[in-house]
Amino acid sequence: MAKAPKTAIQPTRAEDYPEWYQQVIRAADLAENSPVRGCMVIKPWGYRLWENMQRALDDMFKATGHQNAYFPLFIPMSYLEKEAEHVEGFAKECAVVTHHRLEPDPNGGLMPAGKLEEPLIVRPTSETIIGATYAKWVQSYRDLPILINQWANVVRWEMRTRMFLRTAEFLWQEGHTVHATSEEAIEETERMVDVYADFAENWMAMPVIVGSKTPAERFPGAIETLSIEAMMQDRKALQAGTSHFLGQNFSKAQEIMFQAENGEREYAWTTSWGVSTRLVGAIIMSHSDDDGFVIPPRLAPAQIVILPIYRDDAQRTEVIEYVESLRKELTDQTYAGMPVRVEVDDRDVRGGEKKWYHVKRGVPVRVEVGPKDIGKGSVFVGRRDQPKSYGIGRNEFVSSIAELLGEMQQGLFDRALKMREDNTVEITSEKAFRKFFTPKNEEQPEIHGGFANCFFSSEEKVDALLKELKVTIRCVPRNAKQESGVCFLTGEETTQKAIFAKAY
Amino acid sequence: MAKAPKTAIQPTRAEDYPEWYQQVIRAADLAENSPVRGCMVIKPWGYRLWENMQRALDDMFKATGHQNAYFPLFIPMSYLEKEAEHVEGFAKECAVVTHHRLEPDPNGGLMPAGKLEEPLIVRPTSETIIGATYAKWVQSYRDLPILINQWANVVRWEMRTRMFLRTAEFLWQEGHTVHATSEEAIEETERMVDVYADFAENWMAMPVIVGSKTPAERFPGAIETLSIEAMMQDRKALQAGTSHFLGQNFSKAQEIMFQAENGEREYAWTTSWGVSTRLVGAIIMSHSDDDGFVIPPRLAPAQIVILPIYRDDAQRTEVIEYVESLRKELTDQTYAGMPVRVEVDDRDVRGGEKKWYHVKRGVPVRVEVGPKDIGKGSVFVGRRDQPKSYGIGRNEFVSSIAELLGEMQQGLFDRALKMREDNTVEITSEKAFRKFFTPKNEEQPEIHGGFANCFFSSEEKVDALLKELKVTIRCVPRNAKQESGVCFLTGEETTQKAIFAKAY
Repeated sequence: MAKAPKTAIQPTRAEDYPEWYQQVIRAADLAENSPVRGCMVIKPWGYRLWENMQRALDDMFKATGHQNAYFPLFIPMSYLEKEAEHVEGFAKECAVVTHHRLEPDPNGGLMPAGKLEEPLIVRPTSETIIGATYAKWVQSYRDLPILINQWANVVRWEMRTRMFLRTAEFLWQEGHTVHATSEEAIEETERMVDVYADFAENWMAMPVIVGSKTPAERFPGAIETLSIEAMMQDRKALQAGTSHFLGQNFSKAQEIMFQAENGEREYAWTTSWGVSTRLVGAIIMSHSDDDGFVIPPRLAPAQIVILPIYRDDAQRTEVIEYVESLRKELTDQTYAGMPVRVEVDDRDVRGGEKKWYHVKRGVPVRVEVGPKDIGKGSVFVGRRDQPKSYGIGRNEFVSSIAELLGEMQQGLFDRALKMREDNTVEITSEKAFRKFFTPKNEEQPEIHGGFANCFFSSEEKVDALLKELKVTIRCVPRNAKQESGVCFLTGEETTQKAIFAKAY
Repeated sequence: MAKAPKTAIQPTRAEDYPEWYQQVIRAADLAENSPVRGCMVIKPWGYRLWENMQRALDDMFKATGHQNAYFPLFIPMSYLEKEAEHVEGFAKECAVVTHHRLEPDPNGGLMPAGKLEEPLIVRPTSETIIGATYAKWVQSYRDLPILINQWANVVRWEMRTRMFLRTAEFLWQEGHTVHATSEEAIEETERMVDVYADFAENWMAMPVIVGSKTPAERFPGAIETLSIEAMMQDRKALQAGTSHFLGQNFSKAQEIMFQAENGEREYAWTTSWGVSTRLVGAIIMSHSDDDGFVIPPRLAPAQIVILPIYRDDAQRTEVIEYVESLRKELTDQTYAGMPVRVEVDDRDVRGGEKKWYHVKRGVPVRVEVGPKDIGKGSVFVGRRDQPKSYGIGRNEFVSSIAELLGEMQQGLFDRALKMREDNTVEITSEKAFRKFFTPKNEEQPEIHGGFANCFFSSEEKVDALLKELKVTIRCVPRNAKQESGVCFLTGEETTQKAIFAKAY
């Protein structure tokens, strides 16, 4: 993965992957750490990407029958206590509001005052507060299903944070649905993990494995957690979205009951599912290179940036006129059902600097236009996914732009898929397992083998080894064929097989 | 305002305006109070309206050169202390996070643990945290202007809450901009209040008065606050949006400095501006009637609802086919630059009940279609803004739908404007002032005169009377001509004239 002497991002992926990640974010101006511990500022370029992701996901949620709503930021402390595993899962990392006023401190400055009777938790996820509301809404089977999604901020007091991947506050969507039967709820759980897989693969150009979590890795309170798992360029797994079948656990804790068609009072069946700004981190780590960010065209805030080149005012007039008509022609094209997104960068900045600015920000296509190009009726094109630039007739460029963007989108997906396939192995012995997950190189302790497909007898029996190697069971792939084999660690016969990996 | 014996909303506006407001919200299924004190749940119909408002405003912000970004939910307590008036304004009503963990309480249940070194405030508004970030971004005049908006939730610990109008947590947008000169910042402040006025009048069909706040009514820390003020149907004023020129107050508190073209280090000039979910309350109180919610067509989640009417399966097949082709034809029409939004309600519910369901929810146009209508090639139309329904040829209805929606939008605006004009007077004496603001009727203490246009010598001198009558100075209208007159209270000669009103 090492590259020729000079790269726009220092260090390179091969030199120091975690630091490369931070530097890509900085060079692309996506986000920065804020003065508030663990919270980030999402800057305009990063937020525009998130807006595009939101828009696409929101359309998919609506197409599958969901509506948006909004529930309170705060959860009374007692609500969290109602579901035992849930509180266990979140109590250790939540922001607690205890006062509702500030007063002058006799020692100077301010101090909290107006103590609340009951502390409030800033939502780490909203099953409990939304469930309490649903309990009032649901009376009869006629009220079901409830299919609601919420776009919101949530807070989990993480001790070790990393921009986009793990922050104390993050933005996400959380779907919360209620159903009359277990079957319907399971169907919903699967439908939504499929929506996430569709989004990941077709919008983010990120291949994912859909599977179910083993019991120890499930969402606190869930009967079943489905997830999509992707391989990043350092071969670690990233859980990119989860969909939970909650059974009747939350409806029992929250008293979500309905009168069935047969007149009986029954507990409802619920699901929840979410993805977050973590997906921005997933895009960065799936596609970026040692020159910076690479954005899949379908999600890019700008798919094309036009860079006018001129020496003086006379040239400028001519070039800008050409550029504006080119912009309009390109905007009239559609790619993936939407008008092509084009920007013109006419800032007074050196040409080389300007080009690298857009390279580092990951704009898929750069188009330089100067007097010579105008003379030839051509444009000079740079693709973010290839080092070489080339001249091409203006009309040909415009008429083939959707094809070009589509080819780039597919190319990113194919490359990521190949990377995953090249780094996924079947492992049948402890020795091979240890070797696979041992760093190849002391200077890059993060780089190891990748995904290991292993039979295993039980989560308990492999637990100590996984802790030692900092490996986790990612998921039992959904499409795996039923077969039996021998546990890589104990040698016991088993039908359980899963993907093991180091993970974010 | 009283109406014939039976209305869909009880009580009517004339009987009990505040309770009517709550009942309209309930009947339209817009929102409900949550189990968390002062926080509401925004239900799907209400949230869809808010999404339409967001989309329209967001487009207007982008068209005026702004980009979105996202800043932390939490503000370190010490940040709030930096601007003296600002802390004064917000310290009394803020949610304070003091712990980051929950632990088992020896007495049972949970208790806060992990005390923070410095308490965090849940943002009541973000000038201080965004300013701290801008201080790092701004180095040179070349970095200016910064034109950023944020869509977010904020918390102000209000003791008396009312859905949409005043809630502890609410959704809003807050623009925060930085400029090199005072002139530019003032221009921005005015541009954004104009955007709000444009949105209020042309989307919400709500006439507003643009003006500046008197010193005592300004945003804490602002040099000048511009606002849009609207008259509700109970003749009270509602401040529907504000735009603040902050001068150098926050840049001095936050050290937002830049190197000017002449090389000098200077403090920057900042603005902030915001509107919130309060605007949903403004729509409700501007247009709704004793049968429920009335939504201006331009913002309605569904502009038309089609109600198929049939007796049996054979009829159903025929009717649904007709309805689906009608839906498609209507959706192909555009109104105000967007495809017409149409829904079909084929639920198994009695016809009368179904009709009233949509009346109460405020859908602008209802279209009933049964076998008889099909035979005649017609549809049966009910307008939400008029009591009568009528039959009309299908083709004529489809081709004139944009015109109909436009006429309804304009009609709502005209009615609201007339209401405001009919209830706005010039007042020149204390006696007339007292009479104007004294309820006409003991059972309806809220109903009084409306807006009073008065000369006044100073805020201080009229203060006691305003407190006594619970009247406030809403604004000094921007378009008022410079003139002089006599203070209604002191008789002193003055050039100050403002709108006085009771307000939400």
